[in-house]
Amino acid sequence: MLEKIQSPKDLEDLSKSELILLAKEIRERIVTVVGNNGGHLASNLGVVDLTIALHRVFNNSQDAIIWDVSHQCYAHKILTGRNNQFDTLRKKNGLSGFTKNIESPYDWFDAGHSSTSISTALGLLAGRDLLHSEGKVVAVIGDGALTGGMAFEALSHVGQLHKNLVIVLNDNQMSISSNTGAISKYLGHLTTTPQYQSFRYNVDRFVDKIPFLGKPLTRFIFKFKRGIKSIVFPNNLFSDLGLEYVGPLNGHHIGDLITVFERVKKLDRPVVVHVVTQKGRGYGPSEKDPVTFHGVGPFNTLTGKVPVSNKKTFTQVFSDKIVELGERDSRVVAITAAMTTGTGLDSFAEKFPHRFFDVGIAEQHAVTFAAGLARSGIKPVVAIYSTFIQRAVDQLIHDIALQKLPAIFVLDHSGPVSEDGETHQGIFDISLLRPVPNVSLLSPATKTQLEKSLEWAISENVPVIIRYPKGTCPKEVPEFNAPIEKGRGLLVPNKVGKSDIL
Amino acid sequence: MLEKIQSPKDLEDLSKSELILLAKEIRERIVTVVGNNGGHLASNLGVVDLTIALHRVFNNSQDAIIWDVSHQCYAHKILTGRNNQFDTLRKKNGLSGFTKNIESPYDWFDAGHSSTSISTALGLLAGRDLLHSEGKVVAVIGDGALTGGMAFEALSHVGQLHKNLVIVLNDNQMSISSNTGAISKYLGHLTTTPQYQSFRYNVDRFVDKIPFLGKPLTRFIFKFKRGIKSIVFPNNLFSDLGLEYVGPLNGHHIGDLITVFERVKKLDRPVVVHVVTQKGRGYGPSEKDPVTFHGVGPFNTLTGKVPVSNKKTFTQVFSDKIVELGERDSRVVAITAAMTTGTGLDSFAEKFPHRFFDVGIAEQHAVTFAAGLARSGIKPVVAIYSTFIQRAVDQLIHDIALQKLPAIFVLDHSGPVSEDGETHQGIFDISLLRPVPNVSLLSPATKTQLEKSLEWAISENVPVIIRYPKGTCPKEVPEFNAPIEKGRGLLVPNKVGKSDIL
Repeated sequence: MLEKIQSPKDLEDLSKSELILLAKEIRERIVTVVGNNGGHLASNLGVVDLTIALHRVFNNSQDAIIWDVSHQCYAHKILTGRNNQFDTLRKKNGLSGFTKNIESPYDWFDAGHSSTSISTALGLLAGRDLLHSEGKVVAVIGDGALTGGMAFEALSHVGQLHKNLVIVLNDNQMSISSNTGAISKYLGHLTTTPQYQSFRYNVDRFVDKIPFLGKPLTRFIFKFKRGIKSIVFPNNLFSDLGLEYVGPLNGHHIGDLITVFERVKKLDRPVVVHVVTQKGRGYGPSEKDPVTFHGVGPFNTLTGKVPVSNKKTFTQVFSDKIVELGERDSRVVAITAAMTTGTGLDSFAEKFPHRFFDVGIAEQHAVTFAAGLARSGIKPVVAIYSTFIQRAVDQLIHDIALQKLPAIFVLDHSGPVSEDGETHQGIFDISLLRPVPNVSLLSPATKTQLEKSLEWAISENVPVIIRYPKGTCPKEVPEFNAPIEKGRGLLVPNKVGKSDIL
Repeated sequence: MLEKIQSPKDLEDLSKSELILLAKEIRERIVTVVGNNGGHLASNLGVVDLTIALHRVFNNSQDAIIWDVSHQCYAHKILTGRNNQFDTLRKKNGLSGFTKNIESPYDWFDAGHSSTSISTALGLLAGRDLLHSEGKVVAVIGDGALTGGMAFEALSHVGQLHKNLVIVLNDNQMSISSNTGAISKYLGHLTTTPQYQSFRYNVDRFVDKIPFLGKPLTRFIFKFKRGIKSIVFPNNLFSDLGLEYVGPLNGHHIGDLITVFERVKKLDRPVVVHVVTQKGRGYGPSEKDPVTFHGVGPFNTLTGKVPVSNKKTFTQVFSDKIVELGERDSRVVAITAAMTTGTGLDSFAEKFPHRFFDVGIAEQHAVTFAAGLARSGIKPVVAIYSTFIQRAVDQLIHDIALQKLPAIFVLDHSGPVSEDGETHQGIFDISLLRPVPNVSLLSPATKTQLEKSLEWAISENVPVIIRYPKGTCPKEVPEFNAPIEKGRGLLVPNKVGKSDIL
C-alpha cells in the first residue's frame, strides 16, 4: 500500500480495509527505522490511525494540520511524500524528527516545545480570514501538552474569536511521565465512566439521526443538537470556553474517525474532537513500556531490547546525589515538569513520594511553586531541561531572583544536544540567565563537580542554577575538585587537564 | 476608626457598622494619597471591603494572604500597621505600591507581574504541610490575571494536590483593558443570569441548613451538599478541575463576605470564592472612568481632573505611526496582551477593529499567535511592555526566531521605569533578546528614529524587536536620522548631539 501514497490526495481512493492495511505497513516502517536510527517510537505508533484519518479528510493542499510538539509526525511525513527519505530520519542531512517548514509545505510550522499548536493554528486561521484565503486548520495536541498554560491562553482566545478551528485532543492518558494533574484526571473522568460512555453513545445515535442539510442549516442543527445534548450532559471545560465538544472517540477506529472529521469539517465554529489513543500501539515492547520507548536510541526490533550503556551520565549522577541529599535533609523536595525519568528524578520520586511534585508540562508554575515552597522553609530542587527553562525566564527573575528565594534549578541537556534538532539545543541558558541578579550559575564539567555543586547549592541560602550536558561524564580532572567558591571559575583550554584557576 | 487598627487582630472587636465606616475612611485615605503621589486607584478602591473581610477572618499571624499582581494592596498595607507611612507611597524610601516581603511580614510575597499568586500560595501551603506548620493560605486573583496561562497551570496542580487553599477570584469584569476572552465571557455568564442567581441563592439557603458538625463530618457534608447542588447546577470550570466553588458574591457586602470566609476557613479542600467587585468604587471620577484611574499620576481629588502633558511620548508616536502604517497596508494587524491603552493601540483598535486582537494577559499566546498570523502572510505588530516580554522569551526563540517569521515586537517601557519598582523595570530586554538568532533589535532614541524603525520593520521580511522608553521624546538630533542600516548603531557619549556613527 505504502508505495501508492505520494500525497494525501492518494488516500481518497482507498477502501477502509486498505486504510487498515496501510496503517499496519506504516507501523512496521516506523518500528524498523526507529530501531535503526533511534527516535520517538511510542507516540508515533499511537497516532498512525489518527494521522491517516486526518489526511484522508483534510487533503486539500490548503488544509493545514499543526502537530503540537511534533515528535509524533512520522506517519504524517510518510504520507506527505517523504516515505522514500524516511530511512534518513534524524541523520545528518536527513529528515528531522520534528515538523520543519523548509522540509515540506505540509509542515506548516516547526515545533519541538509543547503547547504551541493552538496558538499557531488560530493565528494561521485568523490571518487567512483577513486575507480571504481558503482551507481548514487542524491542531493536534496531546493531553500532556494541554497542561501547559499557553494552550489554555489559546483556548480562551479561540472561544473569543470563534473561528472554525478543529482541535484534535490526542488523549494517550500520559505525557512523557505519567501525568497526574487535575486536567488529566478530568479527561480520565470523561473517558472512563462506562455508564457515561454508553449513555453518550445512545444519545449521539439518536441526535445524529437528525440529518445535515447543507451549510446554512448546519449551524442551526448543531446548535439544536447541542441543546438536546446539554440537557443530558453536563457542560465540560471546553464548552465552558465556548467550543463545541465531540468525544471521546476510539483513536484506532479509522472509519469512525473519518466519519467524525467529515462532519466536523463542515462546522463553522471551533470544535474539540477528543480522541483516545494508545501509546506504542501495534508493537508489543512499546505497548508494554511506552516510557522507555517514548524517545529511544537504536534498538533490536525483534527482541525489543534497548542497549544499556554502563557509562555514568550526568543525569544518573544527579539522580543518585539528590536521593542522598534527600535522605540527609527532609526539607529537600524535588519538582519536575512532566520529565520524571528524563531528569533522573524517578529514584527520588519512589523513595520520597510526598516530597516529589510532577506539575505537568508547566515550567512557569514549577518555578513559582518552588518560590512558595522556599518561602515556607523548604529546599526545592527543580529539574528542567535547559531548553525548557526558556519558558520560565520571567518566573526566575520575578519570583525567585528579585526575592532572593533559595531554590535550586538543575538544567539537564545544557549545551549542544545532538539528533533532536534546533528546538532542543540547550544553548541559550547562559545568556538568558547570567544577567539575572542574585542568582549563582554553576556549570560543572565532571561527576565530582556536579556532586560538589549540589552540595554547595543546598548549603547556601541563595537561588542557584546548575547546568550540565546530556551524556556521559568525562574523566575526572583532579585540579577541578577544589572547593567551590563564589565567583571562581576554571579556564579550560583546548585539552582537558591543562586548565587555569581563574 | 483608622487610628485604632494597628494590626488585623484589631478588626475582631469591630461591629459590622464600624467595619463599614472603616471602609469609608480607608477609601478617603487612598484617594487623598494617590491624588498626591499617583498610583493605582481604581483597583484599590474596588477591594477595600474584600480586604477588610479577609483580614477580619484570616488574622492569625500565620495566615497568609497572597495578592496577585499586588497593585491592589493599599488597603492591606493600611490594615497591617502601615497607615502611618502611607503618605510615602511610591516615594523614594517610602512604601512600595506593591507587596514587599522586606517591608512587612504580612507581605508574604513580592509581586508585580500577573498570575503568580496561585503558584506561590500552593507552594507555601505544600511546604507548610511538609513542615507541619499552621495557618491558612489565601490567594486573591483578578479575572484578568486568570487569563494568564500560569494561573491555569497552578489551578490544575491545586486540583491534583487537593490542599485546603482558598482562592478568591476578584471579578471586576475588566482587566487593565476591557477583557474579552472566553474566560471573561464565562465568568460573566455565571454572574449575570438573574434566574441562575436567585435559583442558586435558594438552593444554597436550603442546603446550608444542613448543619456543620465539627471537622471530621465537614468533609462528608460538603461532599453531600455538593452532590445535591450538582443535580441542579451544571459543573463549572473550577469544579471540573476538582475545586469547590462558592459564588458569585457581592464584593461590597462586608457582612456576607465575612460569613462565607468563616465557613470556607473550616474547609479541608481547595475552594474558589467568586467575588464581584466594582473598580473605582466609592469615588465618582474613578467609578466613571476606571481605565484612566487604573494607574494614574498625581491628580486633583476634588475635581477628578488628571493633568495632561502636551509633550509627545514615545507611546503616542507609536500610536499615531501604527495607524498610518495600518492605513497604508491592510495586512498590518496589532496584538496586545490586555494593554490596549498602555501601549497606545487604542486608536488602531478603534480604526481597525477586525485587525486588532486583545488576547488577555497572555503574552506567550500573543507571540505565538503572531507566528501563525505571519505564516499566513499577515504583518503582525505585537505591543508589550519590556518587563512583560520576559514571559514570552521561549516563544520568541522557538516560534518566531528559529522559523524567521516576520513579526514585529514593540517593547514600550524599556530601560529604567520610575515609581513602579523592581518588578516593572525594562532592564532585561537587551540581554534576554540580543542572543536570539535571526532577530533584529532596534533601540530608537527619538521620535523620528521610532518612526523610521517602524517603517523599516514593516518593509523588511524578518523578525524585528523595537524597544523604547517610557516618557516623552527628547529633542531631535539631525545626525540620528540617517537611513536605518542593519548592524549600524550610534555611539552616544555623555552629551546628546556629540555622537559617532558606528
